Amino acid sequence: MNSNSTSHLEERVRARLDSLTKPPGSLGRLEEIALRFALIRGEEMPSPARKGMFVFCGDHGVVEEGVSRYPQSVTRQMMRNFVEGGAAINVLCRRLQIRPTIVDMGVCGGPMPGVLDKKVAPATANFARGPAMTREQANCAIEVGKGLAEDASYEYDMVGLGEMGIGNTSAATAILSVFSGRSPYETAGPGAGLDSQGVRKKAEVIERALRLHSPNPMDGLGVLQAVGGFEIGAIAGFLIGASRLRLPVVLDGFPCCAGALLAKAIQPDALATVFYSHMSQEPGHKMMFDLLEAKPYADFGMRLGEGTGSALMIGFIDAAVRLYREMATFSEAGVSSSVESETTR
Amino acid sequence: MNSNSTSHLEERVRARLDSLTKPPGSLGRLEEIALRFALIRGEEMPSPARKGMFVFCGDHGVVEEGVSRYPQSVTRQMMRNFVEGGAAINVLCRRLQIRPTIVDMGVCGGPMPGVLDKKVAPATANFARGPAMTREQANCAIEVGKGLAEDASYEYDMVGLGEMGIGNTSAATAILSVFSGRSPYETAGPGAGLDSQGVRKKAEVIERALRLHSPNPMDGLGVLQAVGGFEIGAIAGFLIGASRLRLPVVLDGFPCCAGALLAKAIQPDALATVFYSHMSQEPGHKMMFDLLEAKPYADFGMRLGEGTGSALMIGFIDAAVRLYREMATFSEAGVSSSVESETTR
Repeated sequence: MNSNSTSHLEERVRARLDSLTKPPGSLGRLEEIALRFALIRGEEMPSPARKGMFVFCGDHGVVEEGVSRYPQSVTRQMMRNFVEGGAAINVLCRRLQIRPTIVDMGVCGGPMPGVLDKKVAPATANFARGPAMTREQANCAIEVGKGLAEDASYEYDMVGLGEMGIGNTSAATAILSVFSGRSPYETAGPGAGLDSQGVRKKAEVIERALRLHSPNPMDGLGVLQAVGGFEIGAIAGFLIGASRLRLPVVLDGFPCCAGALLAKAIQPDALATVFYSHMSQEPGHKMMFDLLEAKPYADFGMRLGEGTGSALMIGFIDAAVRLYREMATFSEAGVSSSVESETTR
Repeated sequence: MNSNSTSHLEERVRARLDSLTKPPGSLGRLEEIALRFALIRGEEMPSPARKGMFVFCGDHGVVEEGVSRYPQSVTRQMMRNFVEGGAAINVLCRRLQIRPTIVDMGVCGGPMPGVLDKKVAPATANFARGPAMTREQANCAIEVGKGLAEDASYEYDMVGLGEMGIGNTSAATAILSVFSGRSPYETAGPGAGLDSQGVRKKAEVIERALRLHSPNPMDGLGVLQAVGGFEIGAIAGFLIGASRLRLPVVLDGFPCCAGALLAKAIQPDALATVFYSHMSQEPGHKMMFDLLEAKPYADFGMRLGEGTGSALMIGFIDAAVRLYREMATFSEAGVSSSVESETTR
């Protein structure tokens, strides 16, 4: 669709928003969301009905440096919890009618029934001692994400992304440091619950890794290879794919936004269909939003991941688009649209 | 329930929250919400299933001073829109499985099928020229609200409140000025869409009214009588009733919070079961939250009323309580709760 027809569509959507039985603009950000959703879809009356959630799981070799409060085995245990329906993301998906897909991008252990097996390798290598993955593995993670975005574009009207991976805030922090130029002592945070001593140790490990690899922020794939994660690479690939497919994608917290930073470095327009959901408690998340020149919609003090923030945001987008589609117009409802219209008709 | 058993319940709820498969506290404000909901209900496993919405409608004599962009007839037109299902609140209630009840507290014209007829009088009197209502009418509005709260306590697990009334931000602004001691030139805002000249005129009218009545902020019923509205009185009464009935009540924007100010003045513990939803675009709303020593959960730039902010917040509370009820615990899911528990077992 060229920019001329886009601006024509924008006019029509704005006209409809202003014809609905409410003071113009009174639904605030819900109106912005409905407009943006319609423009991404390229349709005047887009449907929000078919909603999916992809939870990308992966293990991280760097946990052997003691950067997480939880043991590596928890990634797999939580993946089983997703399959069995007991995790937070399952509760939210059930409530909000979102269909979850659990993707194994690199969890230790064999295939698990109920999980989409896209394993690149059983855990990344410890990036404090060498590259997290080979260039081929980095490419592979990106391609898996792109392919899933293409499949999703047939099945869903919008998709949320989430992740699970013990140690992945360390990878995300390293990525943030590369793109922001800030020291890990500024970018590192507690992740799933480190105390201040743990955060300091995490920063030390990441600083050591950055000195070892000196990743070039102009080479997104190289950053992924040096300090990334398979699930983070898949998220980046998903965004790159979705941006070409008019598929709205809702991003969760800190590791997801690290994927967005990589995607943008690899393809500058990769974030064209992204809705950011929430500001997490992880302190580096705000720095990421500054880098992405984006603002999240909500701040609920969450720091869980899994796609929980995405799911809540999908609920909002769904509500916004339904308001836009289903509300009566002034003329349909026989409601006066202002004092002026009352006196002139 | 005495405070001893309340603190016992609080301990049990906190223990369950920390046993769920997530890092402790990682659901942020959703955990606070679930805890508060359980404490209000006095139950360890409260249900969020039965949800209601009361939209109180009333007309305001003060509109003859030209304080609104819309003609008085819009109140009744919008009430019909609520019955026919075309308004924003209808869309949200359908989506979020909330049962709406439309209450006519004082709309001009006869009874309307589908609307609960609790009309105190057809519109308040113009408070710029005399009291908005008699003391008996003020009492009656409060009693209607209390009675509906009692009925609702049998039917619902939580209830949202909303309002519709052309001119009611003028009444709410006057109430805010009484309780804050601030001039209407500071408290008045655009309401449903006045320009700056309109806002100045609105402030003039309210200032004149406050000089005429000199309402005493220690006499909540007197404030309602002087400058209130029937729908605002019903909201105040509903809160007073609900606080005795362990019924969680979710409040919407500026006129609803004016009802909360009245309720607190009439009965200091009337807000014990209130959840505030959102910060509206009406500038005086922030002053109200300061007076109420409360913080809303979200800011979506909305200023529509009808209960639209309440409905969105009910969606959040529902999600929070379901997460608390339905998530698996660490032991149920076989997930390690930390490095410590891993190494010691």
